Amino acid sequence: MKRRRRLALPLALFAPGLIGAAPPAAPLAPAEIVAAAPASAWRAVAPENLLLMEMGDGRRVAIELAPAFAPVHVANIVALTRGKWFDDNAVVRVQDNYVTQWGGADPKRAKPAGLVATPPEEYTRAAAGLAIRKLPFADPYAPATGHAEGWPVGSDGKLAWLTHCYGMVGVGRGLNPDTGTGAELYTVIGHAPRHLDRNIALVGRVIDGMEALSARPRGTETLGFYADPAQRVMIRRVRLASMMSVAEQLRFQVMRSDIPLFTGWKRARANRQDDFFTRPAGAVDICNAQAPVRKGR
Amino acid sequence: MKRRRRLALPLALFAPGLIGAAPPAAPLAPAEIVAAAPASAWRAVAPENLLLMEMGDGRRVAIELAPAFAPVHVANIVALTRGKWFDDNAVVRVQDNYVTQWGGADPKRAKPAGLVATPPEEYTRAAAGLAIRKLPFADPYAPATGHAEGWPVGSDGKLAWLTHCYGMVGVGRGLNPDTGTGAELYTVIGHAPRHLDRNIALVGRVIDGMEALSARPRGTETLGFYADPAQRVMIRRVRLASMMSVAEQLRFQVMRSDIPLFTGWKRARANRQDDFFTRPAGAVDICNAQAPVRKGR
Repeated sequence: MKRRRRLALPLALFAPGLIGAAPPAAPLAPAEIVAAAPASAWRAVAPENLLLMEMGDGRRVAIELAPAFAPVHVANIVALTRGKWFDDNAVVRVQDNYVTQWGGADPKRAKPAGLVATPPEEYTRAAAGLAIRKLPFADPYAPATGHAEGWPVGSDGKLAWLTHCYGMVGVGRGLNPDTGTGAELYTVIGHAPRHLDRNIALVGRVIDGMEALSARPRGTETLGFYADPAQRVMIRRVRLASMMSVAEQLRFQVMRSDIPLFTGWKRARANRQDDFFTRPAGAVDICNAQAPVRKGR
Repeated sequence: MKRRRRLALPLALFAPGLIGAAPPAAPLAPAEIVAAAPASAWRAVAPENLLLMEMGDGRRVAIELAPAFAPVHVANIVALTRGKWFDDNAVVRVQDNYVTQWGGADPKRAKPAGLVATPPEEYTRAAAGLAIRKLPFADPYAPATGHAEGWPVGSDGKLAWLTHCYGMVGVGRGLNPDTGTGAELYTVIGHAPRHLDRNIALVGRVIDGMEALSARPRGTETLGFYADPAQRVMIRRVRLASMMSVAEQLRFQVMRSDIPLFTGWKRARANRQDDFFTRPAGAVDICNAQAPVRKGR
């Protein structure tokens, strides 16, 4: 435990998986629940929704797209990806405690054919048809906030929308009524800017390699744009997993949010019993309860 | 407006200050309220509470200490600073969407004299004596959460504590009942980990230069520790402003939270009327309402 003595903030005590054993004396920590989750607790990320970015420095970012929430914008992003819009492109903006934005390195570059130039306002969708499992804690922003298919969802009971949690991906746009085409994307790199919910089309979530976007020098111009194009972080290539051979494809799974195990995981997040904790919070907010992701199954 | 057309997420339209003018047609945006705030809306950061870190790469970080919340831990940090504990020290841990931690580069280094080796559990204090202005929106974590003297404060009405918002600074510790001495500090670099509230002594807030701690490569070892000491970010020197000559001192001001102007600012944060916004959120959480800071008065 040499390492532990140096630590400030242990995330969890990783005890051996306890599945099948006698009921443990102490409740499982969140990470223990994840580690012990059976195959049935996970849904695979579909290759056609898995966007893989190769950065200029060799880092990789994996994004799951959410066509159930913004179908036209996602179709545009697919068309832009197939048309190599994001290849030899760049991160142009990093604003501390806010967003990293990419795709707009060269505004003069011609966009691929087949784009919807002015997509509809896919900022919300009908709640009907989504099995939202409500968080049992107050959300200041929306009364029926919870999870659907592993996505963080705000809702007023009638409409539903993805919430601006850390790592969520949205479509950059100008002023209203512009909704953006998908040619410029951003991800949240700080505290959840929930005031953007219902004002922008969210289209997915970074599920791996987030540090390739978050751990970048902040731009010094207004809104965090890089003053000098030389400061930009290059993007070498972006592909959908479905554009790759099966052997080449990376695989990810997201924890299902419609199962008792996920309910137990949320409860464990809200009531941390790990040795580190003195007072469990008794609650967890939607952006501190993002569905776990695992790689390579 | 060439720049604006490229933007995804304008923060605010910076209209000219409107103070003294006839009531404007549209409510002021948050940034307009800050820009127009009179001198009486601000409190100066006391030089004895202003910690200035000089990083090895020339960047500077300013931290306001909060002795009203953790007096023994803050006194230790002052003693550690005066005793040069943090000089030629380093950032040893950066964990994505969690914390950056520094001060523990060499566990064998002798600590300066005068430290309280086992400080009391300053995780909460009495709410009495703090004029907490409650946020008028639900906080899932604590019923009486709001601001006191510009600090974000959680409260159940009897006890009060600083909340783990982006940029808040806390004292690294091991397992209970250890509370840490202050020799290792961390700051939040992601979504507010509010489950740490009341479990750790928070001692202050980064009020300037946050990117010198947040925009760093994430460590690849467990909990984000750097695998190789060569990856560490060096800290050249840490001083209190009160240790400097008056000419040398940097100055900062934090917006007062006990004034109607601050109430109006919170309302504006919750009800964004800038041209960019379609649907105001109608709410704001404590970590999206951190008191504005200004420099150099």
